[in-house]
Amino acid sequence: MSDIKKLSRLYDRNKANILENYFQFLRFKSISSEIEHQKDSANCASWLKDYLKQAGLAVEVFESPSGNPIILASWSGAGPDKPTVMIYNHYDVQPVDPLELWTSPPFEPTIRDNKVYARGAQDNKGQCHYVISAIKYLLEEQGTLPVNIKLCIEGEEECGSGFLSEILKKQTSASFFSSDYLLIVDLGYHKEDVPAISLGVRGLCALTVEFKGANIDLHSGSHGGIVYNPNHALVEVLAKLRDDMGRITVPGFYDDVVDVSSSELENIDMYFDQDEYFANFGVRPNGGEKSYKFLESAWLRPTLEINGITGGYTGDGFKTVIPATSKAKISCRLVPNQQPEIIARRLSEFIQKITPDEIKVTITEHKGGASVRTSANSVISRTASRAYSEVFSKPCGYVYEGGSIPIVSELASKSKAEVVLMGFGLPSDMIHAPNEHFGLDRLEKGFITIARILQILGST
Amino acid sequence: MSDIKKLSRLYDRNKANILENYFQFLRFKSISSEIEHQKDSANCASWLKDYLKQAGLAVEVFESPSGNPIILASWSGAGPDKPTVMIYNHYDVQPVDPLELWTSPPFEPTIRDNKVYARGAQDNKGQCHYVISAIKYLLEEQGTLPVNIKLCIEGEEECGSGFLSEILKKQTSASFFSSDYLLIVDLGYHKEDVPAISLGVRGLCALTVEFKGANIDLHSGSHGGIVYNPNHALVEVLAKLRDDMGRITVPGFYDDVVDVSSSELENIDMYFDQDEYFANFGVRPNGGEKSYKFLESAWLRPTLEINGITGGYTGDGFKTVIPATSKAKISCRLVPNQQPEIIARRLSEFIQKITPDEIKVTITEHKGGASVRTSANSVISRTASRAYSEVFSKPCGYVYEGGSIPIVSELASKSKAEVVLMGFGLPSDMIHAPNEHFGLDRLEKGFITIARILQILGST
Repeated sequence: MSDIKKLSRLYDRNKANILENYFQFLRFKSISSEIEHQKDSANCASWLKDYLKQAGLAVEVFESPSGNPIILASWSGAGPDKPTVMIYNHYDVQPVDPLELWTSPPFEPTIRDNKVYARGAQDNKGQCHYVISAIKYLLEEQGTLPVNIKLCIEGEEECGSGFLSEILKKQTSASFFSSDYLLIVDLGYHKEDVPAISLGVRGLCALTVEFKGANIDLHSGSHGGIVYNPNHALVEVLAKLRDDMGRITVPGFYDDVVDVSSSELENIDMYFDQDEYFANFGVRPNGGEKSYKFLESAWLRPTLEINGITGGYTGDGFKTVIPATSKAKISCRLVPNQQPEIIARRLSEFIQKITPDEIKVTITEHKGGASVRTSANSVISRTASRAYSEVFSKPCGYVYEGGSIPIVSELASKSKAEVVLMGFGLPSDMIHAPNEHFGLDRLEKGFITIARILQILGST
Repeated sequence: MSDIKKLSRLYDRNKANILENYFQFLRFKSISSEIEHQKDSANCASWLKDYLKQAGLAVEVFESPSGNPIILASWSGAGPDKPTVMIYNHYDVQPVDPLELWTSPPFEPTIRDNKVYARGAQDNKGQCHYVISAIKYLLEEQGTLPVNIKLCIEGEEECGSGFLSEILKKQTSASFFSSDYLLIVDLGYHKEDVPAISLGVRGLCALTVEFKGANIDLHSGSHGGIVYNPNHALVEVLAKLRDDMGRITVPGFYDDVVDVSSSELENIDMYFDQDEYFANFGVRPNGGEKSYKFLESAWLRPTLEINGITGGYTGDGFKTVIPATSKAKISCRLVPNQQPEIIARRLSEFIQKITPDEIKVTITEHKGGASVRTSANSVISRTASRAYSEVFSKPCGYVYEGGSIPIVSELASKSKAEVVLMGFGLPSDMIHAPNEHFGLDRLEKGFITIARILQILGST
């Protein structure tokens, strides 16, 4: 019997328990960005701790003074001759608004058409759960594991990973994080049944920019033509951040950009189906830099997007106000070697410079993170690729991820490990949106793939 | 004893009652733009009706099927030999947000430093109240009035005067509105103790512009660089509506602008105190067209202002969304002979033309109104000017008003009356803002001036 077949049987034998546990995990309302759910997050962390202890791991819980606990679980029974594999997941989830668009309640997991519908079903509880159940049942069956394991499961990924970042900065916990391989299991591939691992995530820097004109809202009749309307100042400044070709105009913005080499790109499928995009999103792709292919723009080029803008009256009817303030939230996706702090500073300085006189600018910087790119030729990439190929019975491809997992660069640097960015997400999973779901087939494939990666790493 | 002295004594004798009534009037939460206050507006109209009936006027109430009633009160005892004077006011007020900035509750009138603080204290309940109390006590004291009176008091001025506009269009009520003189008592002058009447109000057209990209909010990591962000499209389009000199770029926008002649400008004090502006509003005046003086820009030139802008996430923290939609509210102040419908159409067409492909634009036009300018040499201007001079013991000047009272042009046209734009507002009254207030001295001066205008008109 093949290794994959054996792992598939292991899953089947424990499927009922796995699903019951997965559903328990999904029922916690662990929304990290909503303070009223802090208790739910604590309960979720406590449940995880118990689950991992029962599985036979040593569990340490880092309690945050103001946020959600981090679970650090380890198993070192493979001994010093075997590699140590760290796996990163998170148990917190996105908010559920707008609630009325959910077909079934977000915290009552429901199976329809072999998919589990719930907030977190994929991102990241689903992916976390096949990791922990693979380890649990492998250990239970064989009394041992092929490698040493470290699990890092945090509860603030959806709101910036602030606490984990803090823990990583503390020298005291350095020993825990050191490992040979680091699996970031929070990603996926782009076409069902065509497995792929990601060779990079983009970095992120994010600013809130506030423009202040007069000290009170003014009447646009009396003051129109006199005062500089902060709404006008804002649109004028924001419009200047990109040129007609979609290129970002901030001086120095592209200075540190490292292109992906053509040899690296050879393995990447850059085909982008415009019709499918239109069918999914109701719009043709026509943003971004005009001189790049769509997936180059989405994966390999930095971007600048206005995520939010507000100023003055926008309710029903009309109010002829010149507001005292206007505000925008701007984020940049970054690529190597753009440093979030440096890009944020260059952007801030440029905004300050081009803002009209008499408009006071206040800029707040949010926590960002650097881009990470990995090599397809590392041990861990080749191992993960082999495991995917065995599970899917077809070659594993390579993609990039346009999104960011800001903590990855910090975790990678602290652990000194080789990193692989992987997972079983699909673009159609509706993560961060109503009706998030995850296929039961992928829950199983995830279980088998993780177990297989550990086996391969342990056998060399 | 002078006429002014007598009127001052009339006020003094009734001051306690006047204030008590004024405070009752102010307590109604007659916010016309907020549907939940429709009952408060109805109660306010009912209170007005009773007040005017008790004063001895014939009162007709026009009930709106969907909005607030209009009070039409008349007294025709002066007979056909005497002129008929129509006076326009409104009993509705602006919303009170942000409530936390009010020192005392907006609907609990409070006297501090000889000023009454309340929403509507000036705009327009204060001004309406000295009009109705002048008529009431003049009639009560003398058993008659020097002229025939028509009062038109509407309840939707702050949300577009839709119902009054409808009533004015109906031929049936034409007879009510015909009059010799029309006093629009919703304005003021610019320096305390330097009386002035206004020789013009600007017109208004207003649009809500909605930009739609994808059919759902998208993740800025996965879609940044692919989709055209409606926030970017919006700032790019809005930034193109004015050039670097503050001139509006909409084709044809200035085609119909009529300049005020230099002879008309001779009587106008165009001095603008930049330091005072800074002291009042915390900002130096640096908006508008760079080639015009401040008060030319504010009074005699058309403007375009973004009154509101919204799109995406603007709450605490950060959400890396590319929103499906973004929205702006844009209004233009107009001067003769710009027609609101024509300017709105030109603006709409220009926005449609310069919006990026794939962004769907929806434009909603709100009710506007044409600009009105009056002559300093009309009977009613000279009469009002004389009354102000007598009350203040100094010459009455002339100003323009940058704001709009959209219904004025319709009322003027229907009534066929000579119009005067007047009142006792000051720029520092904080109308439409927290801590709106009105000086008790101006309540008295308003009372005396209105009474004196009626006396002068009746004596010729």
